[in-house]
Amino acid sequence: MTRPGKSVSSGRAGSTRRQFLLGGAVAGVGAAAAIGADLAVSSTDGPAAEPAALHGGQTVQFYGAHQAGIDTAAQAHGLFVALDLLDGTTREDLVRMMRILTDDAARLTQGSPALADSEPELATVPARLTVTFGFGPRFVARARGEAPGWLKALPAFAVDRLLPEFSDGDLLLQIAADDPLAVAHTARMLLKDTRSFASVRWSQQGFRRAHGSVRPGTTMRNLFGQVDGTSNPAPDTPDFDQVVWNRDGWLAGGTSAVVRRIGMDLDKWDRLDRGGREQSVGRYLSNGAPLTGTDEFDEPDFEATTPIGFPVIPEFSHVRRARSENTAERIFRRGYNYDDRPIGEAVSLSGLIFVSFQADVDRQFVPIQKRLDQLDLLNEWTVPIGSAVFAIPPGCAEGGFVGETLLT
Amino acid sequence: MTRPGKSVSSGRAGSTRRQFLLGGAVAGVGAAAAIGADLAVSSTDGPAAEPAALHGGQTVQFYGAHQAGIDTAAQAHGLFVALDLLDGTTREDLVRMMRILTDDAARLTQGSPALADSEPELATVPARLTVTFGFGPRFVARARGEAPGWLKALPAFAVDRLLPEFSDGDLLLQIAADDPLAVAHTARMLLKDTRSFASVRWSQQGFRRAHGSVRPGTTMRNLFGQVDGTSNPAPDTPDFDQVVWNRDGWLAGGTSAVVRRIGMDLDKWDRLDRGGREQSVGRYLSNGAPLTGTDEFDEPDFEATTPIGFPVIPEFSHVRRARSENTAERIFRRGYNYDDRPIGEAVSLSGLIFVSFQADVDRQFVPIQKRLDQLDLLNEWTVPIGSAVFAIPPGCAEGGFVGETLLT
Repeated sequence: MTRPGKSVSSGRAGSTRRQFLLGGAVAGVGAAAAIGADLAVSSTDGPAAEPAALHGGQTVQFYGAHQAGIDTAAQAHGLFVALDLLDGTTREDLVRMMRILTDDAARLTQGSPALADSEPELATVPARLTVTFGFGPRFVARARGEAPGWLKALPAFAVDRLLPEFSDGDLLLQIAADDPLAVAHTARMLLKDTRSFASVRWSQQGFRRAHGSVRPGTTMRNLFGQVDGTSNPAPDTPDFDQVVWNRDGWLAGGTSAVVRRIGMDLDKWDRLDRGGREQSVGRYLSNGAPLTGTDEFDEPDFEATTPIGFPVIPEFSHVRRARSENTAERIFRRGYNYDDRPIGEAVSLSGLIFVSFQADVDRQFVPIQKRLDQLDLLNEWTVPIGSAVFAIPPGCAEGGFVGETLLT
Repeated sequence: MTRPGKSVSSGRAGSTRRQFLLGGAVAGVGAAAAIGADLAVSSTDGPAAEPAALHGGQTVQFYGAHQAGIDTAAQAHGLFVALDLLDGTTREDLVRMMRILTDDAARLTQGSPALADSEPELATVPARLTVTFGFGPRFVARARGEAPGWLKALPAFAVDRLLPEFSDGDLLLQIAADDPLAVAHTARMLLKDTRSFASVRWSQQGFRRAHGSVRPGTTMRNLFGQVDGTSNPAPDTPDFDQVVWNRDGWLAGGTSAVVRRIGMDLDKWDRLDRGGREQSVGRYLSNGAPLTGTDEFDEPDFEATTPIGFPVIPEFSHVRRARSENTAERIFRRGYNYDDRPIGEAVSLSGLIFVSFQADVDRQFVPIQKRLDQLDLLNEWTVPIGSAVFAIPPGCAEGGFVGETLLT
């Protein structure tokens, strides 16, 4: 296999961009051709010709130094499932399970049915499907591997109101695609194959803007209407590689995932005016620019003051509290909105599935969260109700399996 | 307003098809142009030019003889919310509520924020958003209107295992769009404006294939992998108009909606082989063709027999039981898949939000369902767990409101 370390920065990230541009160009031509065909037959009401390329056929390479679904441009739909290992599941079982799951993922992400796929017709529209596996502390212990120091529950934060039904877990499946049926079918196939080894502990479904509905690369908005995730390092840069990829032992070429469910009180947020909302974040709602700038990607100027001497970006604002002088304290965010079924007088049960990838949770994520815990005006309207930490092993080559560096 | 009856068949259905083709052509050209721009700047890594047309900007006309969301090609995401009127809600309150909700829907569906929209930036990507309102029996009674005879709970079917939390309701909101954030924001805006008048009774989220992932007009597949909805009449045909649009009193230009939640036991379905699955439906899984044909839209030949004299399409098959000699017994289906969070050993909580529109529930829907209740092999793997019936009033013109034919 392509060993991580050597080819880390030239791996999937680079090809993703190329593939995207190419895929887009093909889709453009295909769509135009298809439209021509449609127009040609519209008078006779006959069937339209098959378009040459729809985005449902786009695939993300599965094999590689890193798992896909991290540096992959975030898909429209994300499903996060955490499983608990059954008591009797042995190290050998883990090998067996990860071999099966790797095989399933390798096929399904390329638009092929899983082995013994019971609904093979549902596997033909991958729509950039990725499957990313993560291991919790008990998984690593059961594998008799060495766990990185950060692979444990996060320190207790004062703002947390964690529910066990959204926290922790032994095995993470992150299933993401631009098509919701691809996600549903993949989840079912994978979960069937885990059934002898593990049971579902929690699952969370999230969404971003639909594929092709907005300009590619647009930073997502959360349900508060905020532009969310501007300060992310860009995949395919040395910066990203530094922030995300771990270099130690069996995790080399892997990373860590923090998955937190953040309830957002939209009703309370509604009572805050636009000025107050912008102060709480330190960014304009219109385009996400810092209050000291005009463009989303302008660097915030924390020194700037108003004519009467107050900071333009308030001390308590999210953007200021999340930043650090220490450039090591950075993370890569890849979260999803959620909007669950409201019941009774609640008109929303909404929030953010916060997902961050970083080489080291303790060095990178925890200091940020500690600052936000101490002071972040956004805490007024948000509450963490779930939290889990996973080690994300590196990718594998054809013939190998995800987790092999831990399990063999 | 454009009065229903006269212009029923020349209304939105016709323009929808034209808009689609035009929108598609524009998107094709725009995407190609944008890709060109992308390629041009990719060497400098500068920002890509704004594409001329992304599907997020596509809109479906709100005003018209019929409400949108019925003859509109089904969007990728559908949210169905049923509300119960508060005890004190008067007829005058209903007028006020429907005026407000109509105004909200008219704006949001065109990509404009609702009045007093708290997150106006979330309103800019309608992605063919439609909002369709329906009235339950208590709504019509509270409006002191004449209820059609079929506006009541369906007769009890032997297969039903109905749960109150998925059944009945006074006001239906069907919110559908190709972008899930558009659906979430619209639901929140509408539900905020119902808060003084009603509370949420149930809500159900469903999905189909993502926009642009498969060829437009492809019949959806359900989570059993079946092609589902082949025998639908095509919008923009006299057949459709006959099946769907009511012609009586305040409902003229409107219709009825049956919304049933059908749990699908995927685990049990998995134990059935492909031949058994195809026999149970009477269609091939590969392309949905009847077992007596080769193409999805071939008419089933119920007379055809095997060499040893058995019917090729079994007596107990769904396609045979759903058909009637009586051509009046037809419905228009516009349902969605659902896939809720599985807990514990269940690996799926999945099924179909069955949605049908028909001019008259008792004449068209009930006879079909009675036949299926008596004998339909699919009953082995499916169970109705929710059921509701709504009168769908006609559309309105600018300045009017949905429900005005009942409430004024």
